[in-house]
Amino acid sequence: MRRPDHQTTTLTAEAVLAPYLREQAASFLRGLRLQREHSAPADAGTQRADEAARALRHAARRISGTLHTFRGALEPVWADQLRAELAWLSGTLAREHAYATRLGRLLDALHQLSGASLPAARPPSGEGASETDKERAALGVGAARAGALLERRLTLARTRAHSAALQALGSSRFHAVADAVALLASEVPLSPSAAEPAGLVLHAPAELAEQRMLDAVAALPPDEAVEPYNEAHDALWHQARQLLRLHRYAHELLRGAPDPALVGPGHALDLHRDAAEAAAAASAAARTPRIAPATAYALGVLHADQRHEVEAARGVFRETWPHAAAVTAS
Amino acid sequence: MRRPDHQTTTLTAEAVLAPYLREQAASFLRGLRLQREHSAPADAGTQRADEAARALRHAARRISGTLHTFRGALEPVWADQLRAELAWLSGTLAREHAYATRLGRLLDALHQLSGASLPAARPPSGEGASETDKERAALGVGAARAGALLERRLTLARTRAHSAALQALGSSRFHAVADAVALLASEVPLSPSAAEPAGLVLHAPAELAEQRMLDAVAALPPDEAVEPYNEAHDALWHQARQLLRLHRYAHELLRGAPDPALVGPGHALDLHRDAAEAAAAASAAARTPRIAPATAYALGVLHADQRHEVEAARGVFRETWPHAAAVTAS
Repeated sequence: MRRPDHQTTTLTAEAVLAPYLREQAASFLRGLRLQREHSAPADAGTQRADEAARALRHAARRISGTLHTFRGALEPVWADQLRAELAWLSGTLAREHAYATRLGRLLDALHQLSGASLPAARPPSGEGASETDKERAALGVGAARAGALLERRLTLARTRAHSAALQALGSSRFHAVADAVALLASEVPLSPSAAEPAGLVLHAPAELAEQRMLDAVAALPPDEAVEPYNEAHDALWHQARQLLRLHRYAHELLRGAPDPALVGPGHALDLHRDAAEAAAAASAAARTPRIAPATAYALGVLHADQRHEVEAARGVFRETWPHAAAVTAS
Repeated sequence: MRRPDHQTTTLTAEAVLAPYLREQAASFLRGLRLQREHSAPADAGTQRADEAARALRHAARRISGTLHTFRGALEPVWADQLRAELAWLSGTLAREHAYATRLGRLLDALHQLSGASLPAARPPSGEGASETDKERAALGVGAARAGALLERRLTLARTRAHSAALQALGSSRFHAVADAVALLASEVPLSPSAAEPAGLVLHAPAELAEQRMLDAVAALPPDEAVEPYNEAHDALWHQARQLLRLHRYAHELLRGAPDPALVGPGHALDLHRDAAEAAAAASAAARTPRIAPATAYALGVLHADQRHEVEAARGVFRETWPHAAAVTAS
């Protein structure tokens, strides 16, 4: 459903905005129904429950982003309120997924470094081998304990997030959001300017969203390949990720499809976020009182590995970032 | 003193081999004299003592490599014996330097990750900052303790190595090596074949040295970028480094200068060795009984960092390795 750009100059803003929002609202409601059907405790974590939750988050982000970027063409009080409530809801629903992803990521990394699969090639000299084996054994014990500790911590956090999500889904606050989205699926509250041509009303906010993204990318610190422990920079990268998403949804709305040039950089920023959060989880676990030094050691290795992945994701972002993107929407 | 290759076809093997060995022997004796002058405890670690030790190791490696590669043109019993004694001596003298280098490398890495220089950019949101600060503080405390532990361990090892080196320099075994090298500086014990043309006698062993290096490089495991904890592969890389050096000295002897195409790969293999040994030192320190978890954690980070440097060095080696080198000496 790629829409030629010139149509946005002949259509009204309403004709572009309303179908997109209605479509996302319908998708949100579908996700919600599936989520309810599959969120019985026995179903938690099944593939269908995961799919429903993903569809729900996907639609919630798009509605929320559209309400933000194109606020001027919408009923502003309604838009601000729905956006705040969607942020609460999708935040609550996303948390469980985030803990599960983080745990999976950390256990995979631990599995790799505990040497479950020892390389087939053995060193030709026996001397090196025994030292290597000692190192591997020490790391193996620590990795197993670190894995158990992380599993305990993140499973607990996930269970709590699951309960919180179930509780949210039963709350009157939730029913109010669901009602508001159900209303949106049939009728979009617009401002009077929505009757004007889309080119006049929607292009300027879309360009602003793009410009904010470009500014955020320009404000990223220069290549820091030599220092992976610059956690203080993470927030700037996370912000660039958020702004890239807002631009992406605006682009999707106006052109009917996401900007293909931003798929790579967007994916790199997602990986960046996941690795940064996994590193922080390893670091937080290492502050557990009375853990064994071997456990702390493995968590240190894990922290460093994830920070190297953060660094690698920054590198991929820089490599895939299209400088020409500065002009895609202008 | 680059020597045109065709000269090795008109000169005898002796005319190529003897001046090179005499020159290296003279350099060894000069280094030895300086080392003695500057190896009083007060002088240990001064720049002049370091330079003398470096010159000594430099010459010892070249003599030893030449005795190995061109054994057929030399008096074989004498060559084997001197080579064994030089290995003992240069091993003993190199150890002090190795511990000092390792400690410097590890302290630099710790300094970088303890966040002595916090990045100027602060995250825009306060929430992320406090978590980041907690991480940094925990890592800072652990890094300081890990630094103290490594300094204690490696300074002790270095002091022991220094005493062992002084003891070696006073031993009768050492005086026998020094006498043998002094003899070499004036007269090189050759085999009868050394009277034949250099092209006939020296090219085949040089090509064999190159072939052994190429075989070792070909036997290196394929790109393992995804798994930095493959310590079991280190020995194969260390072996490639040794064989590259042997080829390098043979090339130097025949052509009067090292092969410029192998400077980059050789340097990468040196870095590889240093990082692998530093990682092992961090790992060994983490096995110290009763260390604090924060210390173990920082050592884990350090271990991972050094293993990532091992990986990076392998990458640089692969990038700089000249495939055309397969034909340089043939």
